[in-house]
Amino acid sequence: MGRIEALTTLCYLERDGKYLMMHRVSKENDINKDKWIGVGGHFEDGESPEECIKREIFEETGYNIALSELEYRAIITFISDKGDYELMSLFTARAPESEPKECSEGRLEWVDKEKVDDLNLWEGDRIFFKLMNESREFFSLKMHYDEEDRLTEAVLNGKVIAPQ
Amino acid sequence: MGRIEALTTLCYLERDGKYLMMHRVSKENDINKDKWIGVGGHFEDGESPEECIKREIFEETGYNIALSELEYRAIITFISDKGDYELMSLFTARAPESEPKECSEGRLEWVDKEKVDDLNLWEGDRIFFKLMNESREFFSLKMHYDEEDRLTEAVLNGKVIAPQ
Repeated sequence: MGRIEALTTLCYLERDGKYLMMHRVSKENDINKDKWIGVGGHFEDGESPEECIKREIFEETGYNIALSELEYRAIITFISDKGDYELMSLFTARAPESEPKECSEGRLEWVDKEKVDDLNLWEGDRIFFKLMNESREFFSLKMHYDEEDRLTEAVLNGKVIAPQ
Repeated sequence: MGRIEALTTLCYLERDGKYLMMHRVSKENDINKDKWIGVGGHFEDGESPEECIKREIFEETGYNIALSELEYRAIITFISDKGDYELMSLFTARAPESEPKECSEGRLEWVDKEKVDDLNLWEGDRIFFKLMNESREFFSLKMHYDEEDRLTEAVLNGKVIAPQ
């Protein structure tokens, strides 16, 4: 199966006021090293965004989430001065009551939604957590990072929101 | 500028109860030959979906639409037994009062929304016109075409809706 490099998905699984967060401590040379992110990954051949995230959730947590239970929250366009480009589909979904299996990509932990902002997150991720908590309306967000991984601009539905 | 082959945008410009439709009669060897579609095209390097469709609208109609005026209606995943794969961002936007310029890709015409279904459309496009007219809620639709360009399956937000 081919990987489609520019296309990715990310999901925050929700339960009891918490998000399932992955602490990326397992792999060396990980661009997300030591950061906290959700579960997800790259599209494989022929997948829709929902099919990609369903497969990634299963691979990383063991949870089998129905396609129709996935909530499509946003499209995030990432560009960086390093030359990277990524179009990410962002989902949320209710997690089952069982615990996730161990994941080779990082350590999974349930984190209170209000405490997520205290974690070591990508700067831009703080923006979409805020947007997701404020409204369930679909949004499109473009984020521009510089060579040192600093967020230089964020554009929400075509309007610049950072720097303010 | 590089083209990102799998990523496209499409927009239906609206005015006075009509959509601006393009009759693809201008190019030979056009996969859309003789079909009626909207305006749009492939992503270029670093573009967000809104930036891509804004540029395509300008190139094909001369209209300068503000990014924040674009309404992100859906993500459509197309796969075909020919091996094609496309992830299309679908937009609508209000058109200005002026007439569009001539377009080298096809003939532009304003068509009453109720008459769009009478045109020579892709089978799957009839599905998303219906969905767009029923609700303004964002949706994700996957469509599967066979080698003869017949729609064999349509999946809306993870649920099979065709064949019924």
